[in-house]
Amino acid sequence: MLDRFKEACGIVGILGSPEAPNLAYLGLYALQHRGQESAGIVSSDGETLHLEKAMGLVAEVFTEARLRRLKGSLAIGHVRYSTTGSSQLKNAQPILATCRHGMVALAHNGNLVNADIVRKDLETHGSIFSSSTDTEVIVHLIARSKSDDLVEATAEALGKLSGAYSLVIMNERELLGIRDPHGFRPLSLGRLGGAWVLASESCAFDLIDAEFVRDLEPGEFVHITPQGVKSYRPLPPARPSQCIFEYIYFARPDSVLFGQSVAGMRKALGRQLAEEAPAEADLVIPVPDSGVPAAVGYAERSGIPFDHGLIRNHYVGRTFIEPKQNIRHFGVKIKLNPVRDILEGKRVVVVDDSIVRGTTSRKIVSMVRSAGAREVHMRISSPPTVSPCYYGIDTPTRKELIASSHSVDEICTYIRADSLGYISMEGLLKAAGKDTGFCHACFSMQYPVPFPTEDVAQLRLFGV
Amino acid sequence: MLDRFKEACGIVGILGSPEAPNLAYLGLYALQHRGQESAGIVSSDGETLHLEKAMGLVAEVFTEARLRRLKGSLAIGHVRYSTTGSSQLKNAQPILATCRHGMVALAHNGNLVNADIVRKDLETHGSIFSSSTDTEVIVHLIARSKSDDLVEATAEALGKLSGAYSLVIMNERELLGIRDPHGFRPLSLGRLGGAWVLASESCAFDLIDAEFVRDLEPGEFVHITPQGVKSYRPLPPARPSQCIFEYIYFARPDSVLFGQSVAGMRKALGRQLAEEAPAEADLVIPVPDSGVPAAVGYAERSGIPFDHGLIRNHYVGRTFIEPKQNIRHFGVKIKLNPVRDILEGKRVVVVDDSIVRGTTSRKIVSMVRSAGAREVHMRISSPPTVSPCYYGIDTPTRKELIASSHSVDEICTYIRADSLGYISMEGLLKAAGKDTGFCHACFSMQYPVPFPTEDVAQLRLFGV
Amino acid sequence: MLDRFKEACGIVGILGSPEAPNLAYLGLYALQHRGQESAGIVSSDGETLHLEKAMGLVAEVFTEARLRRLKGSLAIGHVRYSTTGSSQLKNAQPILATCRHGMVALAHNGNLVNADIVRKDLETHGSIFSSSTDTEVIVHLIARSKSDDLVEATAEALGKLSGAYSLVIMNERELLGIRDPHGFRPLSLGRLGGAWVLASESCAFDLIDAEFVRDLEPGEFVHITPQGVKSYRPLPPARPSQCIFEYIYFARPDSVLFGQSVAGMRKALGRQLAEEAPAEADLVIPVPDSGVPAAVGYAERSGIPFDHGLIRNHYVGRTFIEPKQNIRHFGVKIKLNPVRDILEGKRVVVVDDSIVRGTTSRKIVSMVRSAGAREVHMRISSPPTVSPCYYGIDTPTRKELIASSHSVDEICTYIRADSLGYISMEGLLKAAGKDTGFCHACFSMQYPVPFPTEDVAQLRLFGV
Amino acid sequence: MLDRFKEACGIVGILGSPEAPNLAYLGLYALQHRGQESAGIVSSDGETLHLEKAMGLVAEVFTEARLRRLKGSLAIGHVRYSTTGSSQLKNAQPILATCRHGMVALAHNGNLVNADIVRKDLETHGSIFSSSTDTEVIVHLIARSKSDDLVEATAEALGKLSGAYSLVIMNERELLGIRDPHGFRPLSLGRLGGAWVLASESCAFDLIDAEFVRDLEPGEFVHITPQGVKSYRPLPPARPSQCIFEYIYFARPDSVLFGQSVAGMRKALGRQLAEEAPAEADLVIPVPDSGVPAAVGYAERSGIPFDHGLIRNHYVGRTFIEPKQNIRHFGVKIKLNPVRDILEGKRVVVVDDSIVRGTTSRKIVSMVRSAGAREVHMRISSPPTVSPCYYGIDTPTRKELIASSHSVDEICTYIRADSLGYISMEGLLKAAGKDTGFCHACFSMQYPVPFPTEDVAQLRLFGV
Repeated sequence: MLDRFKEACGIVGILGSPEAPNLAYLGLYALQHRGQESAGIVSSDGETLHLEKAMGLVAEVFTEARLRRLKGSLAIGHVRYSTTGSSQLKNAQPILATCRHGMVALAHNGNLVNADIVRKDLETHGSIFSSSTDTEVIVHLIARSKSDDLVEATAEALGKLSGAYSLVIMNERELLGIRDPHGFRPLSLGRLGGAWVLASESCAFDLIDAEFVRDLEPGEFVHITPQGVKSYRPLPPARPSQCIFEYIYFARPDSVLFGQSVAGMRKALGRQLAEEAPAEADLVIPVPDSGVPAAVGYAERSGIPFDHGLIRNHYVGRTFIEPKQNIRHFGVKIKLNPVRDILEGKRVVVVDDSIVRGTTSRKIVSMVRSAGAREVHMRISSPPTVSPCYYGIDTPTRKELIASSHSVDEICTYIRADSLGYISMEGLLKAAGKDTGFCHACFSMQYPVPFPTEDVAQLRLFGV
Repeated sequence: MLDRFKEACGIVGILGSPEAPNLAYLGLYALQHRGQESAGIVSSDGETLHLEKAMGLVAEVFTEARLRRLKGSLAIGHVRYSTTGSSQLKNAQPILATCRHGMVALAHNGNLVNADIVRKDLETHGSIFSSSTDTEVIVHLIARSKSDDLVEATAEALGKLSGAYSLVIMNERELLGIRDPHGFRPLSLGRLGGAWVLASESCAFDLIDAEFVRDLEPGEFVHITPQGVKSYRPLPPARPSQCIFEYIYFARPDSVLFGQSVAGMRKALGRQLAEEAPAEADLVIPVPDSGVPAAVGYAERSGIPFDHGLIRNHYVGRTFIEPKQNIRHFGVKIKLNPVRDILEGKRVVVVDDSIVRGTTSRKIVSMVRSAGAREVHMRISSPPTVSPCYYGIDTPTRKELIASSHSVDEICTYIRADSLGYISMEGLLKAAGKDTGFCHACFSMQYPVPFPTEDVAQLRLFGV
Repeated sequence: MLDRFKEACGIVGILGSPEAPNLAYLGLYALQHRGQESAGIVSSDGETLHLEKAMGLVAEVFTEARLRRLKGSLAIGHVRYSTTGSSQLKNAQPILATCRHGMVALAHNGNLVNADIVRKDLETHGSIFSSSTDTEVIVHLIARSKSDDLVEATAEALGKLSGAYSLVIMNERELLGIRDPHGFRPLSLGRLGGAWVLASESCAFDLIDAEFVRDLEPGEFVHITPQGVKSYRPLPPARPSQCIFEYIYFARPDSVLFGQSVAGMRKALGRQLAEEAPAEADLVIPVPDSGVPAAVGYAERSGIPFDHGLIRNHYVGRTFIEPKQNIRHFGVKIKLNPVRDILEGKRVVVVDDSIVRGTTSRKIVSMVRSAGAREVHMRISSPPTVSPCYYGIDTPTRKELIASSHSVDEICTYIRADSLGYISMEGLLKAAGKDTGFCHACFSMQYPVPFPTEDVAQLRLFGV
Repeated sequence: MLDRFKEACGIVGILGSPEAPNLAYLGLYALQHRGQESAGIVSSDGETLHLEKAMGLVAEVFTEARLRRLKGSLAIGHVRYSTTGSSQLKNAQPILATCRHGMVALAHNGNLVNADIVRKDLETHGSIFSSSTDTEVIVHLIARSKSDDLVEATAEALGKLSGAYSLVIMNERELLGIRDPHGFRPLSLGRLGGAWVLASESCAFDLIDAEFVRDLEPGEFVHITPQGVKSYRPLPPARPSQCIFEYIYFARPDSVLFGQSVAGMRKALGRQLAEEAPAEADLVIPVPDSGVPAAVGYAERSGIPFDHGLIRNHYVGRTFIEPKQNIRHFGVKIKLNPVRDILEGKRVVVVDDSIVRGTTSRKIVSMVRSAGAREVHMRISSPPTVSPCYYGIDTPTRKELIASSHSVDEICTYIRADSLGYISMEGLLKAAGKDTGFCHACFSMQYPVPFPTEDVAQLRLFGV
């Protein structure tokens, strides 16, 4: 509802627990922020694979009856977000198919840049497609491999694809976790007693009492069987390009990601922002919930008191019926309400993680002002977002991004703030603690993997 | 609920009407007796294909919202019955896939005898399967054809398959209706103003005011485009083997099938039965609804008065909660109730179309007797069913068929009737008006198309 | 969907079986033809009453979960039909209320003629109403009785009401079955082992293996407790006025009602009709299903052969989406299809139970003719319906009844039949075997209980 | 899911807007925190009242179709929480009834202490009850009033009742807002253009852009018609006893309640708590979301840094399937996860609003410690809760309240904290800014309105 980049998927995998499907379900629940449109789990009882997927939130999709139908000690799961156009069950994951290797299931977080070309080629050779996702291409390529070894067949398939992919793949007996050579999207390994767990973020381990072992490295294949875990690197290496926006917004603050605490990183961004873009003010407030750690960091470094001046309504349904009578800031107000007692008469710093189209920021500034704030200084804990993502994030097109065509001053005027400050690219990388190893193409337009023209690439993201 | 052979599918197709999806929906409604498990329609707006399918009856699946989403003047539809094991949405039809020929959709009535072998071969060559139906094999073979011509590509595909198939196939612009060379299952062509219609039975034409043109002939491909209808016979000819059980039970009595009226045929069966298996009796009653025409014919020829001595409850839901307290004949009684006033003191001929396991007949005889009948003479308007069908009908295995291992006398004893008479094979064919051109393997074990061992063949019918 | 009078309710009650709620559910299923809009059951576990009711058919409303929530060995149930306006859950029955006598539940078949006046009076004395049904008045009057005896309190209440009512009433321990002094609507007593059963029609006993004991007499109160059954007649006697339309159309043919078999009665009507309104014809066909027994009787007496020339589709959903393109006779065709093979070239007698507005008959005549019939002779097994019912049946207003303002010849012209014949009032009563004891106000306008003006009375039937 | 007192209801009313039902719906959405079990709205089109209510959240219950059925410019609404036992639709509100005054609808926040006695009396005089709520008594008493004036009739009714009630009442033309003479529960008046609005909390005004006018005073009747607003005080005055727990936990922090900002009050509690119960610590964290403002206040006064060390998962479904394998702190963990990076090595003050049974606090302390905290000091922004509420809040019985039978030291030991501090009663009242006018019976056992024995009173709260 609010104007943000949208994470497109979260994935989990588990082998070795008699409750694998139940634990996958809880893992997906912990990853729900990564995708709210559909949820699915495939499990294996050693002989056959069972699939349950549907449109909806994890807690809605997985009724007791559905979980009971999922049997076995091996399971993978997926939550998905998508733009409206392709919000259809046929595009939900995991994908389950029967092929020469038996039954294979796969869940994907990311986006393949050359999926269309490969798909056309596969069609020319007689393949049929039943979804409009890029992910189905991977299953076809695995099925076409002559190798009976799951790692080899998968490596052969992925050797033909480029782009962003963190994957969990399973057959009747084996679980495979993979990060692409650039490592765009996260994937971590955990341990729960005798079982091994894979998850997009470590917060999924916390919920099921699993122990975080380590991140998979870019390009790593982790092959898990009842005999143990083996690691492979069958693909040519590439420059690490981990998504820095995971730190800024997508990941949950209680996750440890790419080797660092997300909450810690966000507070560091807030401190850096306070140094780069100070403000004469009486109060620092976050745009909840994502702006909270950066606001705490900003307050800490600037010495300006922190408080919660915007209250979030957590009972948000999927759609709201708007009255015909115009309600000011309706779209934002359904989620946020300012607290006059806290804001009245104050010069307020509002800390948010990003500005996308600018429309939401404009409403927030206006709301804060109408609650009595004397001045409103907007501070953003990321650089201006000037370019779309082609690696697994749902972003508007370039021309919808206000920063792609407007200066900071112009944006400040548009959102009607008294001042506006972004963190610099240097500040971002400094806070991130290292200046290489990240993908920051949405700020810098430095795309680690080439892609076709914008329209095609955007379209490809979510199919027809 | 009652113990009968089950028709597995009904199909429709229409090209040339701005209301094609709505008319397909009504056509499916008229064919609902051919499949009650799932229903689906694919339509084309000329550019893309739209699919709506779900588990349930036609009137439940096709809400106004769902029908609104189906656009275009070209559509195909499918109703499906299936055994419980594979009652899953993934096996519902039509199948819609994208391939080198663009988008293709297909609906199938029948059963492919060599689907497993072909499927294994396709998997070896890299194909992936997303359902457990034999039908998916057809789509794969079409996709692998190098020919860009839909008729040619389909003929090439079907050249590799054997068994029973009536098909409607469509892409963005064309509609194809096909009967296999043996013509096991029916398919008819109709006309509605400027539009052409295909349907499993002519009763679908009646409902939408379409005019019955003719049956497709065995082996015929009817290719329908806005330019008109063309007929092809690209496959090697075979001996016609039209399913005689369609006449006996499956088809609606108001349909014209294989060139004859179903109601007329059933009455002829009843007259023939009266000659072959007369009875000293006061009353002829049918087992409703399928036994009605044969009972009318039996009464007409025998001169014994006809009446409805068993009343059917038409508000039958899908499941019934049976009390723990034993209710006599519960499974049958939930559907049928005898009328004491009609039956009391009478010698009654009960006419039914077939005896499968014998359990239902036994309950019916007992119910009729408990309502006061002095004698109960069971007469069956088909020969004893001794062998399963492998051509698209859901039948029990051979050993479940009471007539496969018991004589007529033994069956009579089991069902506790005073006498039992079946029509003879000769009588059946005589009533059908010609002694060739039919498949009667379930009575004669003369299978027109060879098939693997029974277990495999049965399994193949409805997948894993 | 078809143009008929509509039965408004069916009721059941059972005391003394550990499966009382399950048996009530099956009883309602057998009475489903008396009301398809909502279904409900109240049970008593001896301490408290449990209510489950919802809009929908019995088999839809009573899921296993719902039936499990109903505990106890005492239960009553209700199915309801209603016009659209008041199709609301708040008007579904049974009604359950707490009052000075504890918890009381009640289910009603009929219509109270003075409910509005009594309701106004109750309101003046402080009562509040939560439904718009006439039935709620009964509960209020019982609650206001000073007597702690259920029979006395109920008799006191009903003494203030006039009109039609068959009732089942229960509290935590007792079951009461009541027919009003005129006996408009049916109610029968049955026995199932140690349990006693009440039901609108005997077909409900058949399904649950209960034995039919006898009809309740007009004005009879049957008080059932674990100690046994007692009979009372606390109200002033009145002339018996049992609804003759139950014989003609409402009741199931397999029921025994008012002391006679419904099927037997309908056949007698057909025979009488054949004598009063003979036809030169080749074939007698019924309008299914209600016209079947009368058609059999007509054929028997006239010597003209009987057959099923109209086939009914039994998979009828609640609503059908009609194409914009006009389909001839759509409303009728969705239910009925003529069989050309049976009708072609014939002079056909079509037997139906009644003509209400005439629109359906007109479509049926046209359909039969379009299937090749040379002549169509409509024969009706009841006299012309000239006036509405105020005693529990949903009928159109007087001016909608074609026979209220048109002669038989005019109706014949309107429906385009070659001839039209109704049974006479004398013939009807002769077939019914006695000339007194029936209400035939819809034919004769002789209303046994006076009622306010038509508009008010109609309105009252189903509330606002 | 967490162990808290539960607010039982929220109410709204609006007169004078063509979109009254839509605005009531949005108002209920803003009050969703006051009740999540059922939601309902009654509207008036000037002639009749329309009711829509169902189990579920506001955004689930009020589909577009449901809102469309609500017509008129006058509406009231209700959200309800309840214990499981009486979670039934029949107990959902508003209550709508027809009586001598026409149609009347009513929504109630609170609890009537003498409802059972009055109900018994009403039953003795012939009233029937269709719910098990105390609220239905009010409607009966209004219906029994001879006065045709809504204010008079209602005053007469409420004169017979004691306990807690904030009410919105409507008929076809008038809206009435009422607070009981003690003013236990809140109710505010707002203005939106030409329309008047009533709501439990001012945050409902914010969402619909209405202007907060003032709180209703204890004992005040506000009578709203198209002609304007009139105020009455028809009941004997009483000592104001506004629920102080609304400040501590129930109300939304962005509301202004009883004349003060809730967020401001909570921060004042935190500051007072810091003075009364200081701690040697490195970090102050709240238990989200209710503990946040007090934690900010505590940090501010103590000078110890504030941060969010517990992250809340907002995608909480209603039920969670717990694995058989034991997961530590499962019930809490499904909602909260600690952030190791923030907590590790720190001495942490955890600020919460109350301790009920102690089980949740024990889990939180353990979670914080397992995330690396060296010390955990629990601070509670209310005095020990020693006694249940009988005025509209769902609380455990006395013996379930850990503080009713354990000293602070014993509780500290039970929850395994390094120290535990509560705010004092004096500190609470000091922070509240005045020492009179509040009900604090749950802390002090000083009950402003006498009530029967505990068991009865608890039972009465939510009926059988």
